[in-house]
Amino acid sequence: MREWCLHKSIIVIRQYKRRTPCGVPWRISRSGGEMTVVPRATQGYGLLVSGVLAFEEVDFPVLESESLFIRKAGEEITQQLYNFEDKGGRRVVLRPEITPSLARLVIKQGKSVSLPLKWFTIGQCWRYERMTRGRRREHYQWNMDIFGVSKVRAEAELIHAIVLLFERLGITSLDVGIRVSSRKVLQSVLEMHNIPEHLFTQVCVVVDKLGKITREEIEKELISVGVSSEAINGIIEVLSIKSLSKLEEVLGSEREAVADLKKLFSLAEHYGYSQWISFDASVVRGLAYYTGIVFEAFDREGKLRAICGGGRYDRLLSTFGSDDISACGFGFGDAVIIELLKEKGLLPDLVRQVDDIVFPLDSELEGPASMVVSSLRKKGRSVDLIEDKRLKWVFKHVERINAERLILVGNSEWQRGMVRVKILSTREEYDVSVDELV
Amino acid sequence: MREWCLHKSIIVIRQYKRRTPCGVPWRISRSGGEMTVVPRATQGYGLLVSGVLAFEEVDFPVLESESLFIRKAGEEITQQLYNFEDKGGRRVVLRPEITPSLARLVIKQGKSVSLPLKWFTIGQCWRYERMTRGRRREHYQWNMDIFGVSKVRAEAELIHAIVLLFERLGITSLDVGIRVSSRKVLQSVLEMHNIPEHLFTQVCVVVDKLGKITREEIEKELISVGVSSEAINGIIEVLSIKSLSKLEEVLGSEREAVADLKKLFSLAEHYGYSQWISFDASVVRGLAYYTGIVFEAFDREGKLRAICGGGRYDRLLSTFGSDDISACGFGFGDAVIIELLKEKGLLPDLVRQVDDIVFPLDSELEGPASMVVSSLRKKGRSVDLIEDKRLKWVFKHVERINAERLILVGNSEWQRGMVRVKILSTREEYDVSVDELV
Repeated sequence: MREWCLHKSIIVIRQYKRRTPCGVPWRISRSGGEMTVVPRATQGYGLLVSGVLAFEEVDFPVLESESLFIRKAGEEITQQLYNFEDKGGRRVVLRPEITPSLARLVIKQGKSVSLPLKWFTIGQCWRYERMTRGRRREHYQWNMDIFGVSKVRAEAELIHAIVLLFERLGITSLDVGIRVSSRKVLQSVLEMHNIPEHLFTQVCVVVDKLGKITREEIEKELISVGVSSEAINGIIEVLSIKSLSKLEEVLGSEREAVADLKKLFSLAEHYGYSQWISFDASVVRGLAYYTGIVFEAFDREGKLRAICGGGRYDRLLSTFGSDDISACGFGFGDAVIIELLKEKGLLPDLVRQVDDIVFPLDSELEGPASMVVSSLRKKGRSVDLIEDKRLKWVFKHVERINAERLILVGNSEWQRGMVRVKILSTREEYDVSVDELV
Repeated sequence: MREWCLHKSIIVIRQYKRRTPCGVPWRISRSGGEMTVVPRATQGYGLLVSGVLAFEEVDFPVLESESLFIRKAGEEITQQLYNFEDKGGRRVVLRPEITPSLARLVIKQGKSVSLPLKWFTIGQCWRYERMTRGRRREHYQWNMDIFGVSKVRAEAELIHAIVLLFERLGITSLDVGIRVSSRKVLQSVLEMHNIPEHLFTQVCVVVDKLGKITREEIEKELISVGVSSEAINGIIEVLSIKSLSKLEEVLGSEREAVADLKKLFSLAEHYGYSQWISFDASVVRGLAYYTGIVFEAFDREGKLRAICGGGRYDRLLSTFGSDDISACGFGFGDAVIIELLKEKGLLPDLVRQVDDIVFPLDSELEGPASMVVSSLRKKGRSVDLIEDKRLKWVFKHVERINAERLILVGNSEWQRGMVRVKILSTREEYDVSVDELV
């Protein structure tokens, strides 16, 4: 029964031909010609999994002050802000992400805050850019964040949530993997090459583009940031490492990067999700504020963009002028996962859940039918009332929507205070008084 | 168990002191100093009640084309559009209401549509205006709409949903009433005074302001619309009628207005919610497109704005160039209901629902603790893992959040493959192997 709310809310059918200004398909219903069934996975299952991990729900306005998202590291997310000036001259933005709102909330809590905080939120985010496969201007994003846990346990918990979601959707570790690295890997390399610390963020943002733009372009950008050619070679070499032992060899076992990652892989074994994760030093993620472990889920066939991504951001709060609190989190959009579920044939074909259909056999019986409907709904049953249709249509409809019972309000039965009940699964039929109808 | 999703999602605590650009309080959590507990009633209970009425969920983008909402009747809702031009030169709007999006969807379904459609949606809407009590710029709205039912049954069903929501919230018919009238009342009066039909919408929008602006201002506006002084007196007189028999006397029993309303009140008796509704000819509602029965819920103490409102809009589709389909619906925002629940002391103090807290008694046991947590979550239990706290803190925490069990992972037990379970309600304690832990 726990999943009741899911069946009610995740059945979404979308028409991809015509789109709104934000690229959100606006055809949503259960059936129809050119449409595709789409589970709003980040909402139904996100809610469920967040509950299973005992996270609390928070909610934020989607229209935010632009200043909350202005960062100078050249991130894609800030270049693609859906921002504008409103009629009152305010610089506002349709939020591109949730994390800064969370950070602001934690800061406002101040000393009264009882750590750790484990929060999830599900809501719309925007990007202003061309729409492509798995990228819409408006999409829903499921976020989970932990504030106040400096240990790698926090990342292990977040990845557990992601794995549980995949499992709920019928996705296996053969379909999807989660690449893990740490920004501290890059930090170590920069230290080894005596590159000043203040360049760290910019280097991360540039290096994240590896594989998206050419190596020459990356090098050019790194040089313009102020990194020497020699260091560039060192960085790119380290980023190609795909095993923890090799990383340990190159960086030395004393490095936090190595210790953190080893701890995470050890925890993953205990949780039982080792088969989902792998070390890959090329994972950097494009957000400026990550400081430690970063991760992203990807389809193993390599057809799609990252399914979700996250990481540790221990120094975000100080960028808003507050004392830092260690934190990590992830964002999981609904666009790419939907493409993946389509690829895998895993889009659920959930049926509508209606318990009872009430049908008065005579238009004179609309009053009694109202009574029956009202009485059943009071008992919490999901009841639809059908009128002005032929009985044949009603029988077909009841089958089609897979209702549990058909309740016929007929003249002769009603005169005895009774209605006729038909149980669809067993074809059983009987008369019962309204009071006894449960 | 059906309400599981509610407990997880409707507990919202908001800080009213600091606000975002849209006036949305952004402090949301379970406890804290200056904050107030607020149920996100339109989400949790709206979802539940919509399910009980067997409505299907739909969803639309919040950023819409401005053209969808441009109407020339002088409605408050179009004067307060949160509209702007985006970076691509598009005229867009943060939607002020849901109905036009629904109508567009129905139109696009075209001939393939299987009527009736019974749809609900819950999402944010915006207005650009000064914020006052019960009015924020961004708020959530629960909408239910029926397309393809011309009979008053549709309105009766919608009002049933509203009553069921109030009952769920603990609100009685002593706290709240639902005023009902029909736009056809005004239509009859205009006919009686030979006022041209094309003035109908504008007259409705002006007359809706009765009680909000002075009678003199109303008269001035009606004259500028083109209504004669004599007709104005007739209109205002009829609008003061508060009984159906008096209305019948004035308009005659042949009028559709009278027949519709009598039918609605008769159905209400069968549903069993007569005590909630009353006829009041002054109810017109401010949306231009209503054509028939209109209704609004109000607090009987008269302290607040309308709690929700709706009505029949049989001619909306033709304003978008399509054939008309009869339709009616309501919008139920989360701002006024929250004020009412505060007034009545009905804000629920729902506790967090965590089934198990797992606590390793030694940091060496983080691996085994991970196994325990993972195993329980796989079984669907809501499990939080606590580390690096004193046992005393953990005991208090478990009490505070009202968890069902505390599961201690200790060295001596673990060596035997066991964990210690403490049942909070009974104070029972026992050791059990992880496999047998359910």
